[in-house]
Amino acid sequence: MDIQQYVALKARKAKTASRALANLATEIKNRALMRMAADMEHETARLIVENKKDLMAAERKGLSKAMIDRLTLHADRIKAIADGLREVAALPDPVGEVLKMWRRPNGMEVGRMRVPIGLLGIIYESRPNVTADSAALCLKSGNGVLLRGGSEALHSNMAIIEILSKAGAEAGIPDGAISFIENPDRQCVMEMLKLNQYIDLIIPRGGEELIRMVSDMSTIPVIKHDKGVCHVYVDSKADLAMAEEICFNAKVQRPGTCNAMETMLVHRDVARSFLPAIFNRLKNAEVEIRGCPMTRAIIPDIRAATDKDWDTEYSDLILNIKTVASLEEAMDHIAAHGSQHSDAIVTNDYQNAWRFQREVDSSAVFVNASTRLNDGFEFGLGAEIGISTTRIHARGPMGLEELTSTKFIVFGDGQIKQ
Amino acid sequence: MDIQQYVALKARKAKTASRALANLATEIKNRALMRMAADMEHETARLIVENKKDLMAAERKGLSKAMIDRLTLHADRIKAIADGLREVAALPDPVGEVLKMWRRPNGMEVGRMRVPIGLLGIIYESRPNVTADSAALCLKSGNGVLLRGGSEALHSNMAIIEILSKAGAEAGIPDGAISFIENPDRQCVMEMLKLNQYIDLIIPRGGEELIRMVSDMSTIPVIKHDKGVCHVYVDSKADLAMAEEICFNAKVQRPGTCNAMETMLVHRDVARSFLPAIFNRLKNAEVEIRGCPMTRAIIPDIRAATDKDWDTEYSDLILNIKTVASLEEAMDHIAAHGSQHSDAIVTNDYQNAWRFQREVDSSAVFVNASTRLNDGFEFGLGAEIGISTTRIHARGPMGLEELTSTKFIVFGDGQIKQ
Repeated sequence: MDIQQYVALKARKAKTASRALANLATEIKNRALMRMAADMEHETARLIVENKKDLMAAERKGLSKAMIDRLTLHADRIKAIADGLREVAALPDPVGEVLKMWRRPNGMEVGRMRVPIGLLGIIYESRPNVTADSAALCLKSGNGVLLRGGSEALHSNMAIIEILSKAGAEAGIPDGAISFIENPDRQCVMEMLKLNQYIDLIIPRGGEELIRMVSDMSTIPVIKHDKGVCHVYVDSKADLAMAEEICFNAKVQRPGTCNAMETMLVHRDVARSFLPAIFNRLKNAEVEIRGCPMTRAIIPDIRAATDKDWDTEYSDLILNIKTVASLEEAMDHIAAHGSQHSDAIVTNDYQNAWRFQREVDSSAVFVNASTRLNDGFEFGLGAEIGISTTRIHARGPMGLEELTSTKFIVFGDGQIKQ
Repeated sequence: MDIQQYVALKARKAKTASRALANLATEIKNRALMRMAADMEHETARLIVENKKDLMAAERKGLSKAMIDRLTLHADRIKAIADGLREVAALPDPVGEVLKMWRRPNGMEVGRMRVPIGLLGIIYESRPNVTADSAALCLKSGNGVLLRGGSEALHSNMAIIEILSKAGAEAGIPDGAISFIENPDRQCVMEMLKLNQYIDLIIPRGGEELIRMVSDMSTIPVIKHDKGVCHVYVDSKADLAMAEEICFNAKVQRPGTCNAMETMLVHRDVARSFLPAIFNRLKNAEVEIRGCPMTRAIIPDIRAATDKDWDTEYSDLILNIKTVASLEEAMDHIAAHGSQHSDAIVTNDYQNAWRFQREVDSSAVFVNASTRLNDGFEFGLGAEIGISTTRIHARGPMGLEELTSTKFIVFGDGQIKQ
């Protein structure tokens, strides 16, 4: 069987299963998730053995420390995966929710009901926990899933999939609803991206290169989870103590995340009082600062920011600082250099908060809160499959509801088109 | 300037305008729409002269009667276009609507606000009214639009665009917010479909071939408006008089539309009492009937339906009839042969209505109403840009709300990520 046939067969089976899954009772889905959680914990030793195979291969290949860390499964992480499955079981089932229902002049009742999207294709890299997280979110939202993980995690992923599938089958989940492409050949991904007749949506999760490749090659709709160039603007009317906490948190709490601040914009009226204190705090946290000329006039001990710096997502302890003359200049900078991901203003001025909130066009716009809070858990969505930077279907954190489609439901008593 | 540069320049200008448009006051947008309507009526004579040029070329090229009819502008149609513009002005502005707002345990308020998608690319065929309709819906929803109409309507479209642009400029609409690709070279469409940096969504409107080409070639998200293979199932517990009205309406009222019935499914328990009467009525309306063996045993005077017939959208006065043994057989037939567009059951049985409504997965599922009612106006959406058969973002009739994205808005008083 060639690769094209292999992938198509997997997808067709998963699509068929997804149809049965769409109308499965919530109770069965939850029971499956709870059983999966228990089995994951129960099989901890085996998972660690399988994961070791991947880790040894990764070391032979000389993968980076960061990559090996992402790849590693140990008892705590397996426990966290199991807890994640239980959390998804505890969330409300989005399928069947009627969003709204209204009566038309001809007497018919029209409503919109949430239904699963169908079959989702998820393409990701080295972290094996994505396998279980994605499978759980898809299962709960009634979607079939065809998973394609990084080849460096193949043994770990196959062990996870085997455990999930067995637990699912015992609980009554249709065979194939959680499917995994085991063949590590890269051609498999190319084939997935053309299977419009089976796969309804592709979600890539991983680095820039993966996401660009998937977006360019896919004929199936793609929801991207790109990186972020995020800003905090400290307004002239900011509470400077609050601004310091928010900016420090946005940069330092976890600099590798997509919603961490890359550029701090400071109104010139408060630059002299604000910058020295936060500069010392950032320096103590080993943050490297790059600044505009006006910033460097206040804190001379820093590098000049280059044109490229303003557009860069460092994902690291590096920060650009720019002093601006007005709210408008701050918003223009964000429009020109931001990635429409997460941007914040710190201010006590009503008018400035209002304008920033309305005019900045990012997946989440914050007044007096840290950009790091752009997150499905923080927003109360319960769980997330990522933060969408696509403008259609779902923008910002994607939870269970964002993994659904809708259908119109109409109840009549003989209405016809006049 | 080559074609690539020409299209990119148009798109870049339209994208810039769309940013200004996104925050434009509702009042200005409505004033522009009202002025456009008045100017369209005022320029009726000129529009007819320009349209004549297209009609003469179409006759020289030997286009079909149906195509020439779609291409034709006369005073009534121009009036209808103007009325359409006024109707869009009268609809509520979706931009800025906050869908929901909730408080998180840390005290921050999180909400979701409707915002425009950005720049839409609309690719369509010969009907010049699409130019004005699409421009109006995009303008009202705060989206820039880059239009690409069929070359056979070029003179008509350019005249419409000139009138709309002039009226828009006078009312304060940013220059370029309604843009049109005037170059008839087909290469322009290919270039549009690759401009991910400017265009946020592509909506093709037209025949199967256009839609397939756009879906296959676009690297920008596409929302399709495919054709439909729609069913009405007459259950054993149907009110047969109601069933006759609904089926007749679904087939005959306007057979060329995507929500017209192509196959009627009839439960065998009522086939003998139901089929002869509706057969005569359909015959009198010049509908050609093709049937399964059981149907032909009851009404022998019809052709046998071929395997292909069950999958065909006739868009014409042709109907397949199949007699089925159960609700399950009807739903299996719809799942196997339908296009998930519009499907209906006629029944007085609660359990059968319930199962059909839940298990049939179409953009609109009807109980005791005609499939022809799957329409933005009938559902109360006010206006529609088409009926989406894509499962993500918008499914079924797409009105103004479906032309928006959302952003999360967050109000805090110093919240940081713990």
